Amino acid sequence: MKDIVILYSGGMDSSVALYEHADRIRRALTFNYGSKHNLREMEYAARNCKRLGIEHHVIELDMNKMGFVSDLLQSGGDIPNGHYEDQNMIKTVVPFRNGIMLSIAAGIAESIGCDKLMISNHAGDHAIYPDCREEFIQTMNKAISLGTYNHCEILAPYTNLTKREIALIGKEIGVPFEDTYSCYNGLETHCGTCGTCTERKEGLEGFDPTVYLH
Amino acid sequence: MKDIVILYSGGMDSSVALYEHADRIRRALTFNYGSKHNLREMEYAARNCKRLGIEHHVIELDMNKMGFVSDLLQSGGDIPNGHYEDQNMIKTVVPFRNGIMLSIAAGIAESIGCDKLMISNHAGDHAIYPDCREEFIQTMNKAISLGTYNHCEILAPYTNLTKREIALIGKEIGVPFEDTYSCYNGLETHCGTCGTCTERKEGLEGFDPTVYLH
Repeated sequence: MKDIVILYSGGMDSSVALYEHADRIRRALTFNYGSKHNLREMEYAARNCKRLGIEHHVIELDMNKMGFVSDLLQSGGDIPNGHYEDQNMIKTVVPFRNGIMLSIAAGIAESIGCDKLMISNHAGDHAIYPDCREEFIQTMNKAISLGTYNHCEILAPYTNLTKREIALIGKEIGVPFEDTYSCYNGLETHCGTCGTCTERKEGLEGFDPTVYLH
Repeated sequence: MKDIVILYSGGMDSSVALYEHADRIRRALTFNYGSKHNLREMEYAARNCKRLGIEHHVIELDMNKMGFVSDLLQSGGDIPNGHYEDQNMIKTVVPFRNGIMLSIAAGIAESIGCDKLMISNHAGDHAIYPDCREEFIQTMNKAISLGTYNHCEILAPYTNLTKREIALIGKEIGVPFEDTYSCYNGLETHCGTCGTCTERKEGLEGFDPTVYLH
């Protein structure tokens, strides 16, 4: 039974979720929210959905025009290098991004008769992203359940896993990591130095098919 | 101090909130979400913001393209007549609309340094709109607080008031009700028979400046 609407960026974490739960996924949503790397990510997202026969929708949500402030957005400053937990990475936080994407996914799920939403937040996000932490997901889950007729439920299977643990699940089930994209800079080749590239390298160490600039 | 971002449709309830709290409102957001009456509402919303000197932003969010199903949307069927609590009005529910608008408002508020969101849900909405009820607002409030750095708080001053009670507040403070718009059909003149027109007539009875077709 296909009962899940998944938030799917085309990055490595949500790609592992997409492959792991493919038989239950009714629709994958990729948000074109105006980040520097959105257009690149979307190509990869579309490719994996096509391969798995999963319906793929791009949601247009231009946060630049809406007045959001973040260096991750096209309207923001340069992308900093380093780890997620570094203080300078805070400038790449898009305020309440997960809350917004989960809310829209809830409305779409209810519209098409699904009652499960999947998001691939993980333990490595917790330091600087308040809307990736377990308590947020649990409370948002309750709010969405109360605010929908079909009491939509959030599934967040990787909330307490590290990126390395997610990568190992992906390796086990044969996720084609060469067809996933992480770089915040949105270049054709992964830069290798931004926050997500740094985390990606560490997660995939030993079986990383990615070509990096640095 | 201007610390509030308000969800402002241009209808009578949120117009009363706009006038009542004008001195604290930093920005008013009107969502062009693809309903039949959005374009008409927005003219009224812009007019009231201009009169009060409040910054007004239109948020483009085409729910028709996103795959939402509701008779309130341009992609939906005819608007039914009657009261909000009537069962046939359920077809006009836009799934999780308030959750979505509050989430986007939270991200914008955090981006511009505000920590209050205002929404004008009221007791008359409770019957058929799960995302207008007090328990939803309280839980969503907690989720938004957990998911933002500045712990944004939802203000929902009319949650337990009837539309009549809101109208009386508006009368008291001199809200120009002739410059507010309610009709779900989006006609130049209020139809007088759809759910919101029916509620509007009852709310403004005795001091209603509205011209209705029926």
